[in-house]
Amino acid sequence: MTKSFTNLKNLGFIGLGRMGNLMAKNLIKRGYLLNVWNRTIEKAKELSSLGASIAENPKAVAEKSDVIICMLANPLVTEDVILGKEKYIGISVSDGISKDKMVIDMSTNNPKVVKRMANTLKDKGCELIDAPVMGSINLAAEGGLTILASGREESVNFVKPILEAMGKKVWYIGEVGLASSLKLILNTHLWIMLGAFCETLTLAAKVGIDTKLMLEVLNSSPLKTFVSETKAKKVLERDWRPAATLEIALKDLNLAVDMAEEAYVPIPLANLIKDLFIAGIAKGLKDLDYSALICLYESLAKVKVS
Amino acid sequence: MTKSFTNLKNLGFIGLGRMGNLMAKNLIKRGYLLNVWNRTIEKAKELSSLGASIAENPKAVAEKSDVIICMLANPLVTEDVILGKEKYIGISVSDGISKDKMVIDMSTNNPKVVKRMANTLKDKGCELIDAPVMGSINLAAEGGLTILASGREESVNFVKPILEAMGKKVWYIGEVGLASSLKLILNTHLWIMLGAFCETLTLAAKVGIDTKLMLEVLNSSPLKTFVSETKAKKVLERDWRPAATLEIALKDLNLAVDMAEEAYVPIPLANLIKDLFIAGIAKGLKDLDYSALICLYESLAKVKVS
Amino acid sequence: MTKSFTNLKNLGFIGLGRMGNLMAKNLIKRGYLLNVWNRTIEKAKELSSLGASIAENPKAVAEKSDVIICMLANPLVTEDVILGKEKYIGISVSDGISKDKMVIDMSTNNPKVVKRMANTLKDKGCELIDAPVMGSINLAAEGGLTILASGREESVNFVKPILEAMGKKVWYIGEVGLASSLKLILNTHLWIMLGAFCETLTLAAKVGIDTKLMLEVLNSSPLKTFVSETKAKKVLERDWRPAATLEIALKDLNLAVDMAEEAYVPIPLANLIKDLFIAGIAKGLKDLDYSALICLYESLAKVKVS
Amino acid sequence: MTKSFTNLKNLGFIGLGRMGNLMAKNLIKRGYLLNVWNRTIEKAKELSSLGASIAENPKAVAEKSDVIICMLANPLVTEDVILGKEKYIGISVSDGISKDKMVIDMSTNNPKVVKRMANTLKDKGCELIDAPVMGSINLAAEGGLTILASGREESVNFVKPILEAMGKKVWYIGEVGLASSLKLILNTHLWIMLGAFCETLTLAAKVGIDTKLMLEVLNSSPLKTFVSETKAKKVLERDWRPAATLEIALKDLNLAVDMAEEAYVPIPLANLIKDLFIAGIAKGLKDLDYSALICLYESLAKVKVS
Repeated sequence: MTKSFTNLKNLGFIGLGRMGNLMAKNLIKRGYLLNVWNRTIEKAKELSSLGASIAENPKAVAEKSDVIICMLANPLVTEDVILGKEKYIGISVSDGISKDKMVIDMSTNNPKVVKRMANTLKDKGCELIDAPVMGSINLAAEGGLTILASGREESVNFVKPILEAMGKKVWYIGEVGLASSLKLILNTHLWIMLGAFCETLTLAAKVGIDTKLMLEVLNSSPLKTFVSETKAKKVLERDWRPAATLEIALKDLNLAVDMAEEAYVPIPLANLIKDLFIAGIAKGLKDLDYSALICLYESLAKVKVS
Repeated sequence: MTKSFTNLKNLGFIGLGRMGNLMAKNLIKRGYLLNVWNRTIEKAKELSSLGASIAENPKAVAEKSDVIICMLANPLVTEDVILGKEKYIGISVSDGISKDKMVIDMSTNNPKVVKRMANTLKDKGCELIDAPVMGSINLAAEGGLTILASGREESVNFVKPILEAMGKKVWYIGEVGLASSLKLILNTHLWIMLGAFCETLTLAAKVGIDTKLMLEVLNSSPLKTFVSETKAKKVLERDWRPAATLEIALKDLNLAVDMAEEAYVPIPLANLIKDLFIAGIAKGLKDLDYSALICLYESLAKVKVS
Repeated sequence: MTKSFTNLKNLGFIGLGRMGNLMAKNLIKRGYLLNVWNRTIEKAKELSSLGASIAENPKAVAEKSDVIICMLANPLVTEDVILGKEKYIGISVSDGISKDKMVIDMSTNNPKVVKRMANTLKDKGCELIDAPVMGSINLAAEGGLTILASGREESVNFVKPILEAMGKKVWYIGEVGLASSLKLILNTHLWIMLGAFCETLTLAAKVGIDTKLMLEVLNSSPLKTFVSETKAKKVLERDWRPAATLEIALKDLNLAVDMAEEAYVPIPLANLIKDLFIAGIAKGLKDLDYSALICLYESLAKVKVS
Repeated sequence: MTKSFTNLKNLGFIGLGRMGNLMAKNLIKRGYLLNVWNRTIEKAKELSSLGASIAENPKAVAEKSDVIICMLANPLVTEDVILGKEKYIGISVSDGISKDKMVIDMSTNNPKVVKRMANTLKDKGCELIDAPVMGSINLAAEGGLTILASGREESVNFVKPILEAMGKKVWYIGEVGLASSLKLILNTHLWIMLGAFCETLTLAAKVGIDTKLMLEVLNSSPLKTFVSETKAKKVLERDWRPAATLEIALKDLNLAVDMAEEAYVPIPLANLIKDLFIAGIAKGLKDLDYSALICLYESLAKVKVS
């Protein structure tokens, strides 16, 4: 099956949160025509002023578009919007989709849900590509995201220009679901780094080391990490405005924990981090930046790092 | 007290292992006169041919030198060579030292031992500086080490030219012992990164991701770490020739574990890594590079990462 | 609302596995009339020969009975059989139930599912009591189970004679769902004891202690536990015939892990046990008695305990 | 070598703390003549009034006695008193001992230290038996302790009547040091049970279970443990008067951690407990009963269990 839409410019975009909004804008800039939908319709207004058509519901988006992109908050919402399980019964993407259309799920999703959605859409003659992104708001704004894409290779290649409108680098990861798996795994790597950062910074503070100096030494050395570089200043200044909250970090980590359990892979470090996240949230850090995990470590060791 | 040796060029160097040997050579290159000693005297021969004098024992080194540098294998040996506790009673550095001489301990040492040595030497009118190094053999060869130094600030400044002969960057960390503490803490950061690397790589392999691809994605992203960059190739090629062995990693981590316990700081991630190291060694990985920890994870998850 | 059935002898019993079968027999012995149903109908035959009526499906059981007891394998099946979610749409208990009938869920269940079922049944004017059991096959056979019951207190008291036909002791735990929570928590206590048993036995073996002697000393002391008493012989004789398999233990533990996460309670010991279970299953111990976890510890420490 | 003292009634007893005092009294009751010594001499006065001779120092005890019993606070003190390492150089047990005398170390000791002491005493023609005890003050008072004894079997049999004066049950464990190892292992079993108790009680409280009821259910069930039985009331009444403090528990657990590391046995549960103890002590629970660990769990989950 080789795709050949008469009008590949006709895209659907569902989910206009902070990331989705910026990604959709980049598609418009590249000349794509967008049919958009969002739960809270206000968020679609700005895109409308840039030329996007606002659709009534996910079904309408699917009817009007050749390729439908989703960028939603979590696996539950994503599955509901795409397959119509609870709130979107009868008005979901799958209700509006027809043979040979494609769905690109760019949310951070549960690989099991991705595969389930792919199977259901297959019955309608449609393909699903999962294409989660790495990178923050800033990178999303400038089209600099890294995109992990999986699904049928030919199909991923087919939509590559679309993905490249949103990201500077597109990796092909393999069969559908694997890109989502890899996203969760790379995030897990990040969460353990966060733990390493908090644990060692707390130890340094308690034995009497100047933590500002420690972070300067660390970040001047090959041992620096993404966390030590991006969070050092925040932690020292106790600036907990969130890039991503601890609550989101826990939800994300949980997806990896579930995946590991199903694959029978012990991930003791990740599970320990999970309990630290939980204790952090119990302590009230839920809505703070994930670097606020340091506050939990501080309370465990009875010390302040700054 | 301000130091002013008549001949600051006259240095002692004790401990001519792989690192010590290269560091001593760099001192000779800068014109320092070296009195050297090593447990196995053969290792001193090469330096002798470069102009160093071989001393009979640590005591003799101390008698002949203004500043005595030690680069020894572990805290037990270091304390014995410097203070004379077991094998070196009567022939230790402290037996040969006299007022106003200085000792620089560049070994990775237990901060408690460092402070104990500093106190004992103080009674003889001598100062101890602890100045552990960051960096591998390659960096040691080219004088590119990073050196963490602690002790009286004036004294650290006084010996800075000596330290700069061995390292490209010298950080002043604070009162004696703190540089050793920081070294252990930065290494702990490294060991947890190693765990993050092994745990996520194993998970990726078991859920069906091409691990070579995963490492390429990781190392092209901001989430890369010292471990993911320096060990990816080794792990994929199962090349376990050691930069540092798992046994050495465990000994090193244990120093941090003891320090944390004395300071009453919980370090659950580090303690979990410690148990993984122990299980790895029980499995027979003792003399392999620490990246061989992946073999333990592989056996726990029943999967091969390459 | 006070219950007063014209014929309280008329019970439904759904789920005739190893435990359910024995529990149903005890009800028949006490003179209750049973309408039974099981997925594999063969298991109902024996009860039929004892006087029970075999119903066509869960709906039919509910139609014919005043009180419907369920003893099913897991939360998914239980919710489906009671509410009709997937396989039992239209033929579930809730499809046959009518005002003032009661459901007693005796399965080990997820408290969240219990509450959800209770709410749905409430809309039909029916009450749910969750009444999970503690005790093995042997205790079930002799009506010696301990039963934890929660729901409206008056209702629990009303069905107490039924429960007492199956168990020697019925505890009232509180509002609906709490008995299921407590069951999961007591099991978690058991799983950690299992870990304590395996970890210390392995350590003993490796340092050279006669493990048979160790278990004799332990079981003669106040430090003995349910695990050390019931599993010592099995482990020494490597008899892994399952009372409960490691796979079941993992599923059970997972219910507690999920409950803890939702309540934001860190349970690091339980999560560590979970990873040990996972590694044990990866190693091939899935269908063995949970005491076979010792085999994982043996492989980690490279020692045999017997 | 078969022992045959002319006067086996002549015993030394060193270490008259809470336990030692009661044990010594039981020896006197059985007619043994005691030469006693204690760091703070006041504690020896009462025994003196019962007929014991107070010796000047450990050396004098050893000179006057055929069998010397030690019951000291920790490995460091024990080794010093027996071998004379620091404070007791020249006046230690080994300074007063002579051929064919025996030492029984009843302290909870590090097996490595036990073996080192045994080797040193062997050079003087003397044997060491390690015979740590299980049981509390109450059991010590009534001679009801359980005693684990290791060393040469013939020698353990020879001193058995002495041990039986203090304990109701004497187990022979094997070669010297193994009794101390087993003591540490059984205690580790206890510490993990403590963790299981605190973790599950906290979870119960947070999900809304009446913890008093939970403990009643638990202690009426086969899942009860030494901890759940002896600490339930203390925890519910927040009575933290120590049977053994958390600080002592940590020291004790550390001996097991070190032993496991030397034997290359991973003990992840025990190491996690160790970090919980450390966090508990950082929180200020150091001098409270070890059951006060529940306060740490409470603070992690933000809930009160009573």
